Amino acid sequence: MQPTWALAEIAGDLVEEKRVRIGLVGFGTVGTGVAKLICEKANAITAKMGVVLELGCVVDLDTTTPRPVTLPDGVLTSDLNQLLNDESITIGVELVGGTTIAKDIQLQMLRAGKHVVTANKALLAEHGAELYHVAHENGRCLAFEASCAGGIPIVTALRTGLAANEVTAMYGIVNGTCNYILSSMSSKQEEFAVALAQAQERGFAEADPTLDINGGDSAHKLAILGSMAFGYEIELDDIFVQGLEGVAQDDIRYGQEMGYCLKLLAIGEKNAEGRVSLRVHPSFIAADCSLARVDGSFNAISVFGDAVGETLYYGRGAGMMPTASAVVADIIDVALGNSATTFQHLQLKPRDEVASLVEPIDDCVSRFYIRVMAKDEPGVVAGYGQILGKNEISISGALQHEGHGPDNTVPVVITTHETPTRSMMAALKELGDSELFSGEPVCIRIVDIPEDKDL
Amino acid sequence: MQPTWALAEIAGDLVEEKRVRIGLVGFGTVGTGVAKLICEKANAITAKMGVVLELGCVVDLDTTTPRPVTLPDGVLTSDLNQLLNDESITIGVELVGGTTIAKDIQLQMLRAGKHVVTANKALLAEHGAELYHVAHENGRCLAFEASCAGGIPIVTALRTGLAANEVTAMYGIVNGTCNYILSSMSSKQEEFAVALAQAQERGFAEADPTLDINGGDSAHKLAILGSMAFGYEIELDDIFVQGLEGVAQDDIRYGQEMGYCLKLLAIGEKNAEGRVSLRVHPSFIAADCSLARVDGSFNAISVFGDAVGETLYYGRGAGMMPTASAVVADIIDVALGNSATTFQHLQLKPRDEVASLVEPIDDCVSRFYIRVMAKDEPGVVAGYGQILGKNEISISGALQHEGHGPDNTVPVVITTHETPTRSMMAALKELGDSELFSGEPVCIRIVDIPEDKDL
Repeated sequence: MQPTWALAEIAGDLVEEKRVRIGLVGFGTVGTGVAKLICEKANAITAKMGVVLELGCVVDLDTTTPRPVTLPDGVLTSDLNQLLNDESITIGVELVGGTTIAKDIQLQMLRAGKHVVTANKALLAEHGAELYHVAHENGRCLAFEASCAGGIPIVTALRTGLAANEVTAMYGIVNGTCNYILSSMSSKQEEFAVALAQAQERGFAEADPTLDINGGDSAHKLAILGSMAFGYEIELDDIFVQGLEGVAQDDIRYGQEMGYCLKLLAIGEKNAEGRVSLRVHPSFIAADCSLARVDGSFNAISVFGDAVGETLYYGRGAGMMPTASAVVADIIDVALGNSATTFQHLQLKPRDEVASLVEPIDDCVSRFYIRVMAKDEPGVVAGYGQILGKNEISISGALQHEGHGPDNTVPVVITTHETPTRSMMAALKELGDSELFSGEPVCIRIVDIPEDKDL
Repeated sequence: MQPTWALAEIAGDLVEEKRVRIGLVGFGTVGTGVAKLICEKANAITAKMGVVLELGCVVDLDTTTPRPVTLPDGVLTSDLNQLLNDESITIGVELVGGTTIAKDIQLQMLRAGKHVVTANKALLAEHGAELYHVAHENGRCLAFEASCAGGIPIVTALRTGLAANEVTAMYGIVNGTCNYILSSMSSKQEEFAVALAQAQERGFAEADPTLDINGGDSAHKLAILGSMAFGYEIELDDIFVQGLEGVAQDDIRYGQEMGYCLKLLAIGEKNAEGRVSLRVHPSFIAADCSLARVDGSFNAISVFGDAVGETLYYGRGAGMMPTASAVVADIIDVALGNSATTFQHLQLKPRDEVASLVEPIDDCVSRFYIRVMAKDEPGVVAGYGQILGKNEISISGALQHEGHGPDNTVPVVITTHETPTRSMMAALKELGDSELFSGEPVCIRIVDIPEDKDL
């Protein structure tokens, strides 16, 4: 079927369809998805968007393993130079991953005059400033919608749809592996290890899930999204990161009893002084808020703007086709020339202004959930009451079920009112040292997402 | 504070900030919001986006009523020519509303060489094709993010973020007034009239709410969003529309008992033959699905793409600042030149191809909720059973509480399996005619949103 209602015919003046040749580096899962979309959906994309996408070159060391897509003859190669030297290729897509070879590939493509599209959050989070710099020097752009939250167009939303807003806060579930595990622990009462094993079995976790579980992947995405949202260069060191290691089924259950749901959140919050707190950590959120209902491997990001109020974006954060959808959206945007314009005009405050803009974690005020294992003897309540009181921590709720475990301890759960992190750290040390309690206390932040409601 | 990390300094080569003068027509609620953002947030926008927005002219017949924004001297006028003749003004924003004067204003602005930004869904839904045509003829663009779902960047998402996808279905809560009323009826057991009065009192419904309640406003938005999603010109006549008139508290309650929540949905569904069903009607949806949790005056749109799966967008669909946020996002996008490129390349299939693409409502297959008021006598179950069976309608659930009302009738609620609309219409006529039942049967569609889950 031919596209018809083009500007061309109406204005009686031919506007040529844009024709773009693309070079792809990395022919793994996402690379295969991108190749599929370009090869199989090219006509539909042309019909709707007026751009003709052509796959000029696919570079991968492995040129023999069969993939579920048929490439045109001569396109697959193991030689990056075939892409770099082909002047008809104007867009290079880096889907190799990692921060070493991938960086070199992106730099080579930019220097060869290609625009770069990538899904590589780790590389952007670690070396974004350098790559942006080289892109600018070469008059090329770097597009990265696919780097955060897969198929959800959140980068575009922050860069364009919310451009008139000052972002006051952002809360994201941006790691599908962690969310799958926590959903499974919450709804099926699985232990962490079991939930992780199931996630791996079902393809929602890597064989080595370290970077997902330890919060590193979420921090990479927060660095990128936070830069767009708050308008300055964020480095990984600006972000406080705590992963899911050690999250216990018991705490999820006690939290549920108190009306909370546990999520790994990537948070950017601007406080009254204009400083931004950037954190990734397990977070108890109200069980009836929007993000609490995001289950399985899905991602969602709630963004608060001073004009628009809350907007929320939900969808698949990973996988072959969702990620490929975002990569190809970027390719189209670059092909139309829009990414270049936006990228060229996007302005981030430089690092020397940023230091004073980042709130150190010690200053961060939040509510907390604490669990101590109390020895079943008199003085326990007075004990934790004194420790918390001395540190000016006010208790908001408490839960102690009757009975005790085989070691004669009982879990005592306490939630607090807003408390500076440094006061909480001091109290936790004292609770850990106290003879009344066994082992180290568990401490999880409670995040009160400011729900914008009118009913 | 000065913007700093501009391309300029990095590349050692000055890229000038874009400076754009804007003319605003209509200084009511949204117009005031837009003026506020431009006047009060200009520096923040420049710092982040690299464009300098200047308000060159605000046109309104009423130049004396005070508004909560201070305009620069000489900007407010009642003379549209001041805007049209000012060549330094390149973007005209039409916020007058309605389909007569507003159309004339948009046409005059386009012919005077201005790009047009608008929030006017009624005008676009009724005369979009003509306006697009004139825009193209004049080499200008028409941007309308604010026309659908207020502050939610859904137009951008459909045009760019999801560009690589074939949209297979779209379900939207796009009228805040109706959603406020239905939320209030569902959660507080209010009757329709009471819920409407409260919505008016709280500013969530107009004094004359006809166009909201009768589904017309939702249809306007569906025409616009559907055109973007499915890639062809949709006219209002293509859309089946049924409003909230006559929705009874009883049916909401019975639906809840059966696991459903009532929403007014704007629906676009592509069936197996590639035809699209376009409908606005009260819809029972599963109480645990994402859209069921959208409360109050909020909007949300769930879009299914063949690559990305489900993505959902949520936020405020109306109000001064949320709508202004979308208008100014469009102004920035137009200022950067991106809207023009996208608009220029956007291709819609023309009307002569469309007729065969729209599924007539009679062919639409869906599940149904039916309530009949049965006379309390023998033969009732056999009665409706025979009528439904004869029309090849299969029953999926039924609910009949014991006891009866003062008129000696009892409500019998039946849900069906998938049924063509024409069979259901025939059955409803027979149920209405039957001596066994009193009055006309109530019939509400059940919409099974294909939830994309992995847990």
